[in-house]
This record gives sequence, structure tokens and C-alpha cells, in this order.
Amino acid sequence: MIKIALDCFGGDHSPEANIDGAITALDRLPDLELVLTGDESVISPLLAEKSYDKSRLSVLHAPEVIGCDETPTVAIKQKKESSLMKAIELVRNDDSVHGIVTIGSTGALVAAGTLRVGRIPGVKRPAFCPIMPTMKGGIVGICDSGANVDVSVRMLQQFAIMGSLYLESYGLERPRVALLNIGVEDTKGDELRKAAWPAIKAMESVNFVGNMEARELLSGDYDLVVTDGFAGNVLIKSTEGACLEMLKKLKRDIYSRTINKLGALLMRKMFKDEKEFMDYRNYGGSVLLGCKKIVVKGHGSSNAVSVYKCLEQAYKMQAASLIERIGEEISKLAPEQ
Amino acid sequence: MIKIALDCFGGDHSPEANIDGAITALDRLPDLELVLTGDESVISPLLAEKSYDKSRLSVLHAPEVIGCDETPTVAIKQKKESSLMKAIELVRNDDSVHGIVTIGSTGALVAAGTLRVGRIPGVKRPAFCPIMPTMKGGIVGICDSGANVDVSVRMLQQFAIMGSLYLESYGLERPRVALLNIGVEDTKGDELRKAAWPAIKAMESVNFVGNMEARELLSGDYDLVVTDGFAGNVLIKSTEGACLEMLKKLKRDIYSRTINKLGALLMRKMFKDEKEFMDYRNYGGSVLLGCKKIVVKGHGSSNAVSVYKCLEQAYKMQAASLIERIGEEISKLAPEQ
Repeated sequence: MIKIALDCFGGDHSPEANIDGAITALDRLPDLELVLTGDESVISPLLAEKSYDKSRLSVLHAPEVIGCDETPTVAIKQKKESSLMKAIELVRNDDSVHGIVTIGSTGALVAAGTLRVGRIPGVKRPAFCPIMPTMKGGIVGICDSGANVDVSVRMLQQFAIMGSLYLESYGLERPRVALLNIGVEDTKGDELRKAAWPAIKAMESVNFVGNMEARELLSGDYDLVVTDGFAGNVLIKSTEGACLEMLKKLKRDIYSRTINKLGALLMRKMFKDEKEFMDYRNYGGSVLLGCKKIVVKGHGSSNAVSVYKCLEQAYKMQAASLIERIGEEISKLAPEQ
Repeated sequence: MIKIALDCFGGDHSPEANIDGAITALDRLPDLELVLTGDESVISPLLAEKSYDKSRLSVLHAPEVIGCDETPTVAIKQKKESSLMKAIELVRNDDSVHGIVTIGSTGALVAAGTLRVGRIPGVKRPAFCPIMPTMKGGIVGICDSGANVDVSVRMLQQFAIMGSLYLESYGLERPRVALLNIGVEDTKGDELRKAAWPAIKAMESVNFVGNMEARELLSGDYDLVVTDGFAGNVLIKSTEGACLEMLKKLKRDIYSRTINKLGALLMRKMFKDEKEFMDYRNYGGSVLLGCKKIVVKGHGSSNAVSVYKCLEQAYKMQAASLIERIGEEISKLAPEQ
């Protein structure tokens, strides 16, 4: 049995999307057990309408919600009765619960994940590792994408280890790991990158292929991009933004030209597919690697499908014993100089 | 008369593209004067085939070329007879020469621009400011895009001042300046960003509109993005990369579906236009702001049109007395604490 706590509030379409995603997950993953946290008076009537295996779902009452505008460190202390913190404390205290999925406040999750769930021994700081689709039909992970804006060489080494093991849970063998930099030569970049290159290169557990420039993110030539959370955030958001703006521009240009309208009619389905392709909600959540339990953060605008994808992701990570494997590899790292 | 030195070597299509660009510039800009640097035995025969106003073009012999793979600081010392260094020394020593345009080694240009042309008094470090098209038909500048990977608050303030004045030479009034960050709230980001926000906000000469997330780059809501050279480089390259990959994917998907092929035929011209739209070569070069003379760096793959655009850019900057205006505004900055 794999048991996951699902925070049912905090998203744009909560709790409906969360509950629908949970029902789908129970249906498709036979040895999954779920604990839903949130206001029972809201959740129970919604559940009453559904048909599902009641022996594998329970509700933990939590009357409060942490908003995205609240200061994370304050919110996690003051809102102990929130759906997020109830789920976090359950994961912290109950050995039979393997992880947490939420689509609520990112900041509160990072703070609570680090302070309450706790770090795997040796891990400096947990890091986000979202997944994007590549143009060759595969995926690419980016670690860190925003949990840590000020990082050290040792942290980048750990991001490389944790991200590699995570991608292996997707079935990738020896993921190709690159360091995000402003040029491919090993002498490029700021002081951090210059020092990180040989340090990552020296790790046998990581298949390091060198520096990567930002324009190669979607090329399919790399499986994991290692970077600080500031540059990682810029990388992901500018890529998403550019793809969506490009599609919007194409559509606008088509509708401004009569001759193209005919073409557009024929291509309508394809445009829809391209938008789907870029929709991060189809790729599950961003996992917070390095915590003692599995932590998955879905996008705030998640629908039922994306909540399901997040649950499936958490399930696969546990099935692959990811936490234990990260612990083993981190413990093998040579002590810092 | 506006006089510009044009380095005729170092690009993928040099010297032909450089020379053709120069001829176009002389044709279109009546009070422009050019000094072409490079191997005279190569340049002169090419010029002999062209018709142009010979009173406004001269050639300065320079038998060597600095390659893109050479270490910049070494190359600028050892290759004094190179087309780049001859142009740099001319700009340094001849008061009647207002600036330099090159499509050669970026690193050598930054080193030579800083060390030989020299900085405007008070400027900490010169910074690149390339221009990209926005989806609303306007432009957006990014400063710095890669000259400085480790920066201070004061440098970011200066990038804001220099970039604003540069964009004014494009006819923009009170350009909207944003700080690239991982969220829009003023408390977001690393230590650098948190300190930079109030420091830029406090400058009256800059129309600061707050933080901007990377996904908004092409939105048209901002005129200038201020950032360190590492994040700026990631921002530009991931945006370019994503747009081009998206177009490639669309094309591939079209040709894999019969029904779409008909649509594609009708849209062929439009696809060509979109690619043109994203082609950085149509937007001139990246200017290196903060040097005592005008410095413009075109892309290594520049064709004749883009060399012309770079020359036009340098011409407009001089016509707008940009160097003097930067000097004035920088001198008004309060002393550092």
C-alpha cells in the first residue's frame, strides 16, 4: 500500500479539482490509499456524489486555508488548522504516510517541507524539480526551479544527484545532466558555475555532460538541467511564456489574413494539440526533492487531470523508493572541504 | 558628420556581409562616414566592384583576425594588428571617430571596450543591451545580457539608467523599466534583487515599474528589463530557443498530417514572416553601454542587412548624443553608501 496525504484546498479550482483527481487516482492505482485534508463540511458532500473505494480514502478535518499572499513562515506557524499544515503534520508524524500532494501556496510548502517534514540527512536544502516536454517527445527536468535563489557548489552537486534519481523513476537510465550556463566551454560563467563544473564532473553517480545554454532546453539532448533557483525560474518561465506568446501571435496573424483563415480551419485541431503540449498541467507537479517524505506541488490552476498526475507522480516516486535512494547517494558524497 | 569604424572580419559571412552592409549604410545615411578595418588585399578588390561615395569611406589595413575561440584578454594584447583592435585603437585615439561596429569575438570586444576605449566616468562596468521584438509590435531591451555575470546593486542601477537613455534614442519616452525577478512582489528574489528594488525605485531619472517575471518578456508591457548578465543571458536564449523550437515543431506536425498540408501551403508565407519576426539579425546588434564611445556588437552570423542595421543603430545613438547623456545621468547618482 502507498499512502498519500492530499491537501484539498489552496488551488484555483479547489476543492472540486482535488477531489475529482483523487477519485481518478483511486480508480487507476489499486494499491493507493489517500487522506484528504480540508474542511469536512465542504469535502464530505462532494464525496457523497462520487463512487469510489471507501476503504482507501479518509478525510482529515482542517477548517483553515493558507492563501498564496500570506508570508510563508508566519502562515505555517499560525495556521496549524489549515489543510496544508494538517497534511504536513500527518506526513511528519505517521510512518505509514509516504508523501503529500498540494496545489496551494508554494512558499508555505517549501517552508513546511523543510522545517516540519525535514530534510534527508546530509541534504543542504530541498529543491524543486519540475518536468517539461521536449521537442523530441521526451522530457527534461530542471533542478532547482525556484526553492533556493542563493546556492552553493555543494547544493548544485546535490541537485544533480537528486534530480538524476528522480528522473530514473520515470524510467530514464543514466540521465544526461547539464549545468545551465552562458556558454558551453567549461571556463564560462560566474564564480559559482566555474567551481561547480569540476565538482559535478567528479561525481561518479551523475552522468554529467557539461554546460548547456538556455536555448537548448527543449532540444531533447539533455535530461536534467542543474541550476540555482533564480536562473531556473527564469529559464522555465521564459520558455513557457515564449511558447504561449508565439502561439497567440500565430493565431492573431492568421485571423488578420483572409487567405490564411482557410488554412487555419484545417489546422485548428493541431493548434489545440500544440497548446496542450505546452500546458504544464499535463506534466504533473513540481516535486520538492530532499525532504524525508515525498512532496509534490501542483500548479495553482490545476484541474482534476493535473491533480491526478501529481498523485500518480508521488505514487511512482514511492514505488521507486526514491527517498531511500537519495539518502544513500547523498551519504556517499565526500565531506566538504 | 558621424564617423564609425567598421571591423570587417570575424563574422560567419565576413568580409562580404560587412562590406555590403557598409555600402547600404553610406547610401541611406548621407552624413555617415566609415572606416573599414581588415586585410586591405581582401577588402579593396571587393570594394572595387561596388559603387559608393568614395569620399566617405576609407580602409585601415589590419592583416590579423581574432577568432571566437581565443582567450579575449590574451587576444587583445597579442593581436594588435587585428581588424578588431585596429578599429578599437582608432576609436580610442581619434576624437573624430564616434564609435565601432563589429560582428567578431564578443569576449574580445567586452575586454577591449572596457580596457582600451574606456568607461564613461562613474560607470562601474559596461553592459550589453540587445533589443527583442514584442508580441505587440514594439521592442524590449535587456540590460545586461551577458557582459557581467557577477553584479552589484549599483551596477543594476546604472544598467537601468543606461538602458533607459538608449531606448530613448529609439523614440521611446520614459521607457518602462522592470527588474527581472522570480515574482512580482517587491520582497521576492535573492539578496541582490531585494536590495536593488528600492535602490532603482529611488532614482527619479528612471521610470521603474517594479519586478517582472520572465514569462512577460514578450508581452509588450515593459520597455527595459534590468538584470545581471547571467539571468539576462538565460532569459534571451531561452526565449529565442523556445520560439524557434515551437515553429519547428509546428512545421513538423503539419507535414505529418495530410489534412494540414493544404493548410500549410496557404500559410507558408506567414510561417516565413514569423521566422523573420524572431530573427535577431533584423534587430541590429547588442550595444555595449557605458564605454566612452559607441560600441555595437552584431551577431556572428550577421548578413549584409544586419550589418547595416548595426551601423544605423550606432549612427542613431551618436545623433542622440547618447554618450554625453549617459555621462550626465551617471554623474548625478548619489555616492555609494
